This record gives sequence, structure tokens and C-alpha cells, in this order.
Amino acid sequence: MVPPAKDLSLADAGELGVLALIRDKLAGIEAGVIRGIGEDCAVISNGNYYLLVTTDTLVEDVHFSLSYTTPYLLGKKALAVNLSDIASMGGTPTHALLNFAAPPGLPLSFVREIVRGIHFTSNRYKVPVIGGDTVACPPGIVLTMTVLGRCQKDQVAFRSGAREGDLVFTSGYLGDSAGGLTLLREQIEPKPHHKTLLKAHLDPVPQIELGRWLTQHKLVTSMIDLSDGLSTDLAHVAEESGLSAEIFLDKIPISSCCRKAAEELGRSPVSWALTGGEDYGLLFTVPIERAEEVKRSRSRGPFCIGKMTKGRGVYLIENGKREDISYRGYSHFLP
Amino acid sequence: MVPPAKDLSLADAGELGVLALIRDKLAGIEAGVIRGIGEDCAVISNGNYYLLVTTDTLVEDVHFSLSYTTPYLLGKKALAVNLSDIASMGGTPTHALLNFAAPPGLPLSFVREIVRGIHFTSNRYKVPVIGGDTVACPPGIVLTMTVLGRCQKDQVAFRSGAREGDLVFTSGYLGDSAGGLTLLREQIEPKPHHKTLLKAHLDPVPQIELGRWLTQHKLVTSMIDLSDGLSTDLAHVAEESGLSAEIFLDKIPISSCCRKAAEELGRSPVSWALTGGEDYGLLFTVPIERAEEVKRSRSRGPFCIGKMTKGRGVYLIENGKREDISYRGYSHFLP
Repeated sequence: MVPPAKDLSLADAGELGVLALIRDKLAGIEAGVIRGIGEDCAVISNGNYYLLVTTDTLVEDVHFSLSYTTPYLLGKKALAVNLSDIASMGGTPTHALLNFAAPPGLPLSFVREIVRGIHFTSNRYKVPVIGGDTVACPPGIVLTMTVLGRCQKDQVAFRSGAREGDLVFTSGYLGDSAGGLTLLREQIEPKPHHKTLLKAHLDPVPQIELGRWLTQHKLVTSMIDLSDGLSTDLAHVAEESGLSAEIFLDKIPISSCCRKAAEELGRSPVSWALTGGEDYGLLFTVPIERAEEVKRSRSRGPFCIGKMTKGRGVYLIENGKREDISYRGYSHFLP
Repeated sequence: MVPPAKDLSLADAGELGVLALIRDKLAGIEAGVIRGIGEDCAVISNGNYYLLVTTDTLVEDVHFSLSYTTPYLLGKKALAVNLSDIASMGGTPTHALLNFAAPPGLPLSFVREIVRGIHFTSNRYKVPVIGGDTVACPPGIVLTMTVLGRCQKDQVAFRSGAREGDLVFTSGYLGDSAGGLTLLREQIEPKPHHKTLLKAHLDPVPQIELGRWLTQHKLVTSMIDLSDGLSTDLAHVAEESGLSAEIFLDKIPISSCCRKAAEELGRSPVSWALTGGEDYGLLFTVPIERAEEVKRSRSRGPFCIGKMTKGRGVYLIENGKREDISYRGYSHFLP
């Protein structure tokens, strides 16, 4: 007898598999929809400009733990990670919505602190919160924020625009956030040089101004925000652009604090940088003739880490050896 | 010694208390924001028309149970409840986003069915799904959908526009959904006359066409969708309009199926109608001279149930007696 086919679970498919399933069934070319599922923001034609929409959900004990973050920082981060998606398109955020799901026993003071954190970021980037939903969720906190934004039609960046020969840049250091998360999870007593790493994880800064500057000056051919780890985020850019990417181990920007903490913990700072995720910087490709303008734009970074080539996949180059590191970053559902 | 002040919980404040806290801290008058927190949709000025945005979260074992609904119907409903908010403004829905949070052990076939349900409604109302998020949530399913819509600037309805003397209408019967939920929760063996009630709860139909027709013909002075129960939804309209509402017990539209099921279960159909919620019809106020046009619009319903008067609160009138029934509907967090 043939055994019945096993019903696969989300853990068998992983986040990208589940996303593909949703995308295959729901995606369709619609008039006015410039980009849909699979981009950092949905992009809709809206008169003379593009309307951008993005939404991210943070789940207690998946994305954060109340054992190591504060409700104030959680509120700041819930909005910041959405602003980072707007930044990756070169957009300007305009409005936000908050869906707040929490256990009935949660102290009201906790909500006040979350809202104070959201208010700080909302005020900093002039993004008023204009709606949302408030519901009971007995097992834990689930925060969803949605952000609307806009950009000029000729000043937008997608994942898909990279060209052969373009150089690959990151806006800042990689791995600090993953290092910070490791310090928090392992309850390491904080030392002064841990501060940068803890802040990178708990209180990331969306790169709105940089994203806008890069697209306004038409310096980038593609862009994505660094949320799932370089190996996965760059794999999206390579795949959507129909190209391969090569990154050079000795060019990966790792801060001295990150190296020091990794050594203390016996971990690999490169692994944090490639697969850790949640850096919330920008990853973008630049035509070689515009590279100097980009490098001069800040006193420290952006950093050139590699280049786009013919082929498929993301490769790490070390002493002439090529290792395929595509999609090694964070994926929901996987065990 | 003075005892320390008790730290109140969400259960002490209730949904409206938590909402007030969020609204007080985050609300602000912003250029271009016509309506923000506290309306069925956020309303933003956008060229010649208004952009509408609404978002609702459905939590497993709070909003639905897998013991009595199917993933297909869950998907349909997740989108329908958001479309109902667009309907209540007189708007046309244009785009949707899906935030899907679920346990890693969930069968993939389950996701396929949810997506098939969303696709049905998406297709029926021409609302493409253009983005979202996919995350692990070990304790259970949390579905958030966000819907964008639009309406002409002179064809929009708010909660706040009711005037003294206006008549109060509902688009359809009240209490069917609460009756259906009771049948499902108490695992009553389904009889033929239960079908309407079960469908009302599991598979509600958003009143998009009616909402648009009412605003296009400028027949309504205020409108809201019936999600939390008549007593709460009408209290919002009364409060935002600075008026009181009187409804007449013998005018409350209760279906014969609802009365029959209530009798079988020894429950009050009026209580289902006033406080049960999730009917997802429209509740609206009409100037007395336009009432006949509204009544003639459908073969069955809309139903005139009362009128707006000076004062505050919502009152049920029975044999000349007045009972204050304001805000007796569903409220999250309350025990």
C-alpha cells in the first residue's frame, strides 16, 4: 500500500516557501500596481508620484523578548523597521497605523511606554499615526505597524535593477545587531564596548535620509534593507535582477566592537554579518562610475563589499575560493 | 503608609480605555489627515479624492476558533471585515495587504485554504493583495489585513455627521451573527434554520455597494459598520455627533431564524442584536425627508430603528420606558 502523502507544515517550507505559496495564488498584474508581493514596499501609481505601503509584524518571543527589551524601545523599533522598508525604496514616510494585540493582564503602564516609543519615532520622522486596531491576544504581544510613504516616479529603487558590473554597497557595519542579540539571549553582563551592539539590536535607526539621497542623485540601480542578513537580502537582489553577486570576505564591514564581542563569546563575527539579520542598514548596487560619489557621501561608510556578475546566487570570495552563501539568513518557520 | 497605586491592566481599562490612551498620545492634527484614530478608516486628502486606509487583526481563539471555522472561510472573513470598514465610509476598496503570523507546525494545506478564501473575496471586489508580512507565531494564528480605498471628497460618510431629527437605519438584520457564534460555541447540532445564522457569523458580506450608493446620493449624514454591536456602534455615532440616539425595541430588525434559534437556546434575540456584534452591516443616519428613498432601495431593509435627539447616550425605548444601553457591545480585554 502506498502510504498517504505527508501534509507538509510551514516548518518544511520555510518563510520563503510560504511566501511563494501566497504570492503564486494572490499575485496578479493590476493596473497601477508597480510592485506587489516580494518587494520591500508595495508601490502604487498615484498621480504624479508613487504611493508606498509596507507592513511588518513583531511577535513576542520570536522578534523580541520582554526579558531583555523595554516597551519603550519595542515601540520605537516597531515603527523603525517599517521606516527602513520605506528607506529602501528611496521614499519619504508619510503616515503610520498601529495594530496592537496584547494579553488582557498586561499593565496599562506598559502600553503607555510602547506608545511613548512609537511617538518618539513618529515625531522624529514626521509620520503621524492615523489608525489601527486594538485587540486581545492572550498568549502574548503581537505588534503590527503599517507605514505609507511616497516618492517621485523617477526617484525610486527596486530590488530588481542591478546590472552586471555594478558595485555592491552596505550603508554601515554588519553583524552588530546579531552580536547584540547574542549578548542579550545569553545574558552576558554588559561591558562598555557592548553598548553599540545592544543599541544596534534594540534601537535600530532607519536610513531614510540616505535612501532618499541615493535615489534623488540616481546613484543606485537597486536597493533593499538589511533585515534578514546579507546572504539572504543580497540573494533577493541577485535573483530579482537575474544576476549573481560576489562579495569579498575582507571587505565585509565589521566593527571593532563586534569583533571583540565575538571573540569573547567564541563566535564568528562573519557569520553574524552574513546571516544574523536585523541590521536595518541599506544594501544597494551602484554603477562603477558613480562609486566615488557614494564613498564620499559619509565620513564612515557606505562600504563597497563586492560586485554583480553574470550567473545566479551569492558567493563569498576568500583567498580566491568561492562559496555559495545564498539565502543563509533568517527564515521564519524553519526549526 | 500610603499603599502603592495599583498598576492597572488592560482588563481594567477595556478596549475603549486602551484606545483612548493610544489616541491621546499619538493623535495630532496633521495637514492632509481628514480623519485619524477613532474612525472606521483613516482618511487622507490625496489630490482630487480621499485615500482611505483600514486595518483589522483577527486572533485565534479570540476572533475565531479552528474548532468551528474553516481556513477558507477565515481567509474570506479576514478580508471582508476590512472591506466593511471601507463600505462604512462610502468608499471603493482598491488594494489589500496580508500579515500572516502562524505556528511553524501548521499544515501548508491550511495556508493554501486561507489564501484561497482571501483570493475569492479579493477577486469578487477587485482588491488585489499587493504586500504584507509572513512570520512565525508559535502560540496561534494572528491574521492582520490592511485595505486601501478611495472615495470622492464630497461622497464620504463619517461617524460624526448625524443631526438632530435624523432617522437611524441598519442595512439588514441584527443578531444573526451573535446567534451563529452561540450555536458554534455550544456545539449545537445544525438545523436548516441555523444556516443563515452560521453564515452571518462565518462568512459576512461587506456592504460595499450599499455604502457607495448611500454616499453617492448624499442620503446619509453619518455611517459606521456594525462590528461591536448596535449599542456600542450607535454610541460612537452619537458621541462623535454630539447627540443622543433613541431606538425602539419593536423596530429592531431580528430575523425569524434568529428568534427561533434564540428560543431554542433560551437566549434573548434582542441581546444578540444590541450587544453581540460582528453583523458587518451598515448603521447610518438619514435626514427625515430622504427616508423614503432609503427604504425603497432594497426589497428587504434597510430598516429604520430610531432617531437622533438632543443629549448624550443611546436609549432603548420600550412601552415608553427609556433604558441607557450605550457601549454594552463587545469590548476587547474586559473579563
